[in-house]
Amino acid sequence: MRNKPIGIFDSGVGGLTVYNELEKACPADDIVYFGDTGRWPYGIRSPRVVTGYAGEIVDFLLSHEVKCIVVACNSASAMALENIGPDCPVPMIGVIKPVACTAAEATQNKRIGVIGTEGTIASGAYAEAIEAIDPSLKVTGKACPLFVALAEEGYLDRPATKLIVADYLASLKKLDIDTLVLGCTHYPLLKNVIAEEMGEDVRIIDSGASTAAEVKRRLIADGHYRDEDRRGIHRFYVSDTPGKFAQVGRLFLGREIGTVTQIDISRYGVEIPQPE
Amino acid sequence: MRNKPIGIFDSGVGGLTVYNELEKACPADDIVYFGDTGRWPYGIRSPRVVTGYAGEIVDFLLSHEVKCIVVACNSASAMALENIGPDCPVPMIGVIKPVACTAAEATQNKRIGVIGTEGTIASGAYAEAIEAIDPSLKVTGKACPLFVALAEEGYLDRPATKLIVADYLASLKKLDIDTLVLGCTHYPLLKNVIAEEMGEDVRIIDSGASTAAEVKRRLIADGHYRDEDRRGIHRFYVSDTPGKFAQVGRLFLGREIGTVTQIDISRYGVEIPQPE
Repeated sequence: MRNKPIGIFDSGVGGLTVYNELEKACPADDIVYFGDTGRWPYGIRSPRVVTGYAGEIVDFLLSHEVKCIVVACNSASAMALENIGPDCPVPMIGVIKPVACTAAEATQNKRIGVIGTEGTIASGAYAEAIEAIDPSLKVTGKACPLFVALAEEGYLDRPATKLIVADYLASLKKLDIDTLVLGCTHYPLLKNVIAEEMGEDVRIIDSGASTAAEVKRRLIADGHYRDEDRRGIHRFYVSDTPGKFAQVGRLFLGREIGTVTQIDISRYGVEIPQPE
Repeated sequence: MRNKPIGIFDSGVGGLTVYNELEKACPADDIVYFGDTGRWPYGIRSPRVVTGYAGEIVDFLLSHEVKCIVVACNSASAMALENIGPDCPVPMIGVIKPVACTAAEATQNKRIGVIGTEGTIASGAYAEAIEAIDPSLKVTGKACPLFVALAEEGYLDRPATKLIVADYLASLKKLDIDTLVLGCTHYPLLKNVIAEEMGEDVRIIDSGASTAAEVKRRLIADGHYRDEDRRGIHRFYVSDTPGKFAQVGRLFLGREIGTVTQIDISRYGVEIPQPE
């Protein structure tokens, strides 16, 4: 089992921020990444639809004999994990619980803000996870539906972006939070504007490092951590054409992605031949 | 055949702007509307994926024995219609050609701008259709990827919206166009800001009226127009939960939508029972 790959998926390209940290935490491990670019974004969909999509992806990753599955997508972690995780034959690790732990440790005044997609915020998953750690913590969520579109479009630091960030964060600023969770893997691209708006006393927490650390901890606990002097082989699969994934992926990783293969995920992992 | 319903589909809710005009043009006709809310938006996807999705929807509509199919989605009209239309056993009418005719008639100085999703603009379908009518017409396209998100989020007239509209339209303003095609069914929601930015000398053309007029013309030509004193029965199907479709649909129609039913479109029209 130890030499099997780690599976990781996201609705699209945003999960590469988690992948990036996973590679650092588990450098010897092989990784299979799936980005559902043919059906993203997930944050605008219902829990039922997201659960159906995530179920297909889990089957696809299991066909690669993965030893665990990392749900790098906040929306899928919030809306689908509790339905799918219990029946999955390998451990499934979402982003919500690791990030909730980090936020609970970080706050001094016990007031935490969480921003994310409509689906993530409506699920209440972050509030539930944080309050389960310490019921005295006060968690306030705010959906920021335009942030993903702004990040994708490269509107990272423009006047319009600053106005929209100020609109969305106004209600959280009034609550005197000292910790803000970026509950969507696209939001780190807007981190500078968000941090500036919230002020230097607010600590900003994203999904990558906490989740990767939890995966490593769990693999070590299960005796499945690969502690060897090798560099893992990483494979990337998507449900739309690979070109744009590779292109936007460079934005997230700051380097080239290797070969990306398109599959028909609704048929559970049958590879589609690429056109010439 | 005359008494069969008209089929119409869109990636989601935006096609209701075309449906609205279709109802006026063909009031006695029954209509079956499908919105692919579980997989929208289409404008960020490749022609190949959009063609696959549109093919499933056409099969679903044919299972309702429709007499024609209206492709109310600009992205699907631009990326999928020429691949699917020739094999379809009933006429398929997209938004591009009717709107191209209206734009070609409207321009005085022969300079036309087209705005739309990345997929629609990259396809070049509007330029091709307009230049086929009159090769002396000069067509310039500009993708405006943030407009759909702004419209969905109700950012119709805010300062941030005005900044983004000004960014996107700056290159078109320099070209002295006198006609601007809103090549996406969401854009009419931003019409006021777009018109203000372009100035009063630029005529703005959207998809609804031209397309509905073309459908009526075609049905009359085929002897399939239903010219009776009755009000058609309209049914709505979607691929995600019906609640949000009905809610955002009110924004587009200015009135309530009737019963909306969720189906699993990837299985070609098997109805999913709704949870209690």
